[in-house]
Amino acid sequence: MGDLVIRPATDDDIPAIVAMLADDPLGAQRESPDDLTPYRTALKRLSGDPHQHLVVAVREDRVVGTLQLTIIPGLSRRGSTRSIIEGVRIHADERGSGLGTRLIEWAVETSRSEGCQLVQLTSDKTRTDAHRFYERLGFESSHLGFKLSL
Amino acid sequence: MGDLVIRPATDDDIPAIVAMLADDPLGAQRESPDDLTPYRTALKRLSGDPHQHLVVAVREDRVVGTLQLTIIPGLSRRGSTRSIIEGVRIHADERGSGLGTRLIEWAVETSRSEGCQLVQLTSDKTRTDAHRFYERLGFESSHLGFKLSL
Repeated sequence: MGDLVIRPATDDDIPAIVAMLADDPLGAQRESPDDLTPYRTALKRLSGDPHQHLVVAVREDRVVGTLQLTIIPGLSRRGSTRSIIEGVRIHADERGSGLGTRLIEWAVETSRSEGCQLVQLTSDKTRTDAHRFYERLGFESSHLGFKLSL
Repeated sequence: MGDLVIRPATDDDIPAIVAMLADDPLGAQRESPDDLTPYRTALKRLSGDPHQHLVVAVREDRVVGTLQLTIIPGLSRRGSTRSIIEGVRIHADERGSGLGTRLIEWAVETSRSEGCQLVQLTSDKTRTDAHRFYERLGFESSHLGFKLSL
């Protein structure tokens, strides 16, 4: 396989990102690949924020992965800055290729270089393969994640 | 009890906030109330960011509660914006008074007015009272929360 590049997402990447978001047992019900307008609006909001890193992984000019990393300063833990990983998706053709590991390692390295002391993420309780994946990478499943839809 | 005001935290509130962060079974080992410098630095970082709301609850000129609300735009769920609640603390004298509910309701209302479609938080697996509290407020414990210390 060709070289992998991880770079900031641009407007041209949106169709590929949304296709990956939708190609997922949970995402299938929540996304609208036929109407990209809300995604383009969201990318504009993200692009202006220095604490936001929405990236794509590209191999041979094809978008094959994505994640969003948010940097969050805070007071707790002696004024620690933490990062949060959201929206991790790997193209179906690339699952099992080690790309997920590369993307998470990128997020951890970027968090370190931005001065974070903690990286965190939540994963739906039904995604048991993902849980084993994060534990292999050194993450500890120490918390419960609560959500409230508005 | 006197009226409650929820307002943005200022530098003068830091000693009271840090005392609450430290007065906690988990926080006791992680905080340094004798050295407030890292907390003051962190508050400066937060104050310049329009997506950050670090607030205190004040009753009769006394800081009795705190939380941090972060607004996070994103692509998933049709370009949804979500919010994350962190660092919820209630002064020991006020536990059971309904103040926790008031603070979380403030966070939910603020999230709604900022256009969020989802509010989320994580809670250490050992905080079983907190889990019941969030479930009573309508949050669903649908996720596992993973952390990696750097």
